[in-house]
Amino acid sequence: MSSTTPGSTTTATETASAAAAVPPRTAVIGLGAMGLPMARHLAGALPVTVFDISAERRALAVADGAAEVTTPADAARDADVVLLAVRDQAQVDSALFGPDGVAPALRAGAVVLLTSTVGPDAARATATALAEYGALLVDAPISGGPTRAGNGDLLIVVGAEPAALDRARPVLDRLASTLTVIGGNPGDGQALKAINQLLAGVHIAAAAEAVALARGVGLDPRTVIDSLSQGAAGSFMFADRGPRMAQAYGDDADAVEVRSRLDIFVKDMGIVTGIAKNAHVPVPLASAAEQLYLLGERAGLAGRDDSSIVTVLSPVSEGDR
Amino acid sequence: MSSTTPGSTTTATETASAAAAVPPRTAVIGLGAMGLPMARHLAGALPVTVFDISAERRALAVADGAAEVTTPADAARDADVVLLAVRDQAQVDSALFGPDGVAPALRAGAVVLLTSTVGPDAARATATALAEYGALLVDAPISGGPTRAGNGDLLIVVGAEPAALDRARPVLDRLASTLTVIGGNPGDGQALKAINQLLAGVHIAAAAEAVALARGVGLDPRTVIDSLSQGAAGSFMFADRGPRMAQAYGDDADAVEVRSRLDIFVKDMGIVTGIAKNAHVPVPLASAAEQLYLLGERAGLAGRDDSSIVTVLSPVSEGDR
Repeated sequence: MSSTTPGSTTTATETASAAAAVPPRTAVIGLGAMGLPMARHLAGALPVTVFDISAERRALAVADGAAEVTTPADAARDADVVLLAVRDQAQVDSALFGPDGVAPALRAGAVVLLTSTVGPDAARATATALAEYGALLVDAPISGGPTRAGNGDLLIVVGAEPAALDRARPVLDRLASTLTVIGGNPGDGQALKAINQLLAGVHIAAAAEAVALARGVGLDPRTVIDSLSQGAAGSFMFADRGPRMAQAYGDDADAVEVRSRLDIFVKDMGIVTGIAKNAHVPVPLASAAEQLYLLGERAGLAGRDDSSIVTVLSPVSEGDR
Repeated sequence: MSSTTPGSTTTATETASAAAAVPPRTAVIGLGAMGLPMARHLAGALPVTVFDISAERRALAVADGAAEVTTPADAARDADVVLLAVRDQAQVDSALFGPDGVAPALRAGAVVLLTSTVGPDAARATATALAEYGALLVDAPISGGPTRAGNGDLLIVVGAEPAALDRARPVLDRLASTLTVIGGNPGDGQALKAINQLLAGVHIAAAAEAVALARGVGLDPRTVIDSLSQGAAGSFMFADRGPRMAQAYGDDADAVEVRSRLDIFVKDMGIVTGIAKNAHVPVPLASAAEQLYLLGERAGLAGRDDSSIVTVLSPVSEGDR
């Protein structure tokens, strides 16, 4: 099957037959914005056990057919695939190697499926640490947001040994509409995800500069977005975040929904610039974007939609509403 | 007709009827990469007189039916519309107000159509200076490149008084597939074009960082571009310039065509950061991009394709070819 070849990209349709194999027992650790919809979606097709420190979040997964347990170790004990959907590397370490952690409880042949964005070095260190317990890591960071997570419509980029990938594939196929196997080692998925985040984070910041400059020179941001978003100046982020940035200055500013938190880009641009520094590659724009997201965090926008970064460059004033 | 309303965008089909009026006698000043194909395309439908300091460039326009003259004044003398397609504001000033310049030779009612990217302040100053000669300026910077210029397939953004716009419209309609009237004053078109260039220039630089980082972490740039260019990380420039950036490291590096010179972005990002400074709007990414294009110019890439900026971040080495 060509889809385990590094560099290959497959869609759900192409790999639907793989999911017809014996469904792996799956543990989901972490029921946050992405973990909960993934757990619910998986529970419709596979035996799923969930762990989160919040009983309330566990109850939401149980309502969709998952079983709940109260430690990571209990979640892992009978699982073929242990999916981690936690915030950062500290939470990965705690879930796997902390008290009542996953690693010592893993069955022989079980794989750990890491969906968090933690950076290549952290993924490689995790793979090395898991190897001492005889377990393999599938490095599989996800993109797409909560709604797509709940519909099996995620973009997943994978770095994993073929044997590990094969075991995790029924779970990945259920979650992904596009699955790219970029390399044969843990860390490769994280590297590609970091490049994705470099572009996404810079494009959001560029959209913010465009909207702020439009306001600064007296042009209507919505007209500017409409005029430019389909041409050579266009990006997914300009078309997606641009209108929400314009909305920040309107009567309906309070209706801007938090679709992706700003502090995700504080973390992810930090990973990007860290990788670039280690590789001795200058990334002046990513660095400038990282500083801008840090300024946004300091301005109190950490938990706001990332489109709110525009208000750092062009503050909302009395006259706007 | 709604197309003279600021904020309106029209397509060639919608405005075809306007071009059916008496064709204006048109002078084209400047037969560079954009001026020559525009002159040739206009000469197929309108009486066109051309001026350029190069007799060779004039001869190319004459072959397509234009008349040639040897001073800007002679080009302007009988013209209803004087189209300027020169490099920068210094050339605009020289063509209009220098020895044998356009301004003193203009007929009553003639309009000057400025297609160059010079910035809003320069366009406003030009309009003020032309007013002393009783002439109106149509501020109409163009985007799209030489091929589209020769096919009447340009994106043109316009700031002009309705009376001036009406007189220039048959020429604009012949050149543009998309015409956006962003405001009623000269300078408005330049402001929108500057925002277009902010996004385009930042997106090219971001694509360069992505390709350089891919190389730095050992991923194949072409695979990275294929994987990411259609998703949330996508931009027109990543899909367009990305493959040419990857080509810079391949056996076919010498075949990278100069579609848009790198030093255009030295000029245009300078305009962007100048406007932003005047408007007191911080643009940290555009500033970083400006510095990167300056580094590219200093590295000897001024006349190379702008995609070559990637080689500043990740130099071509012996092992690449």
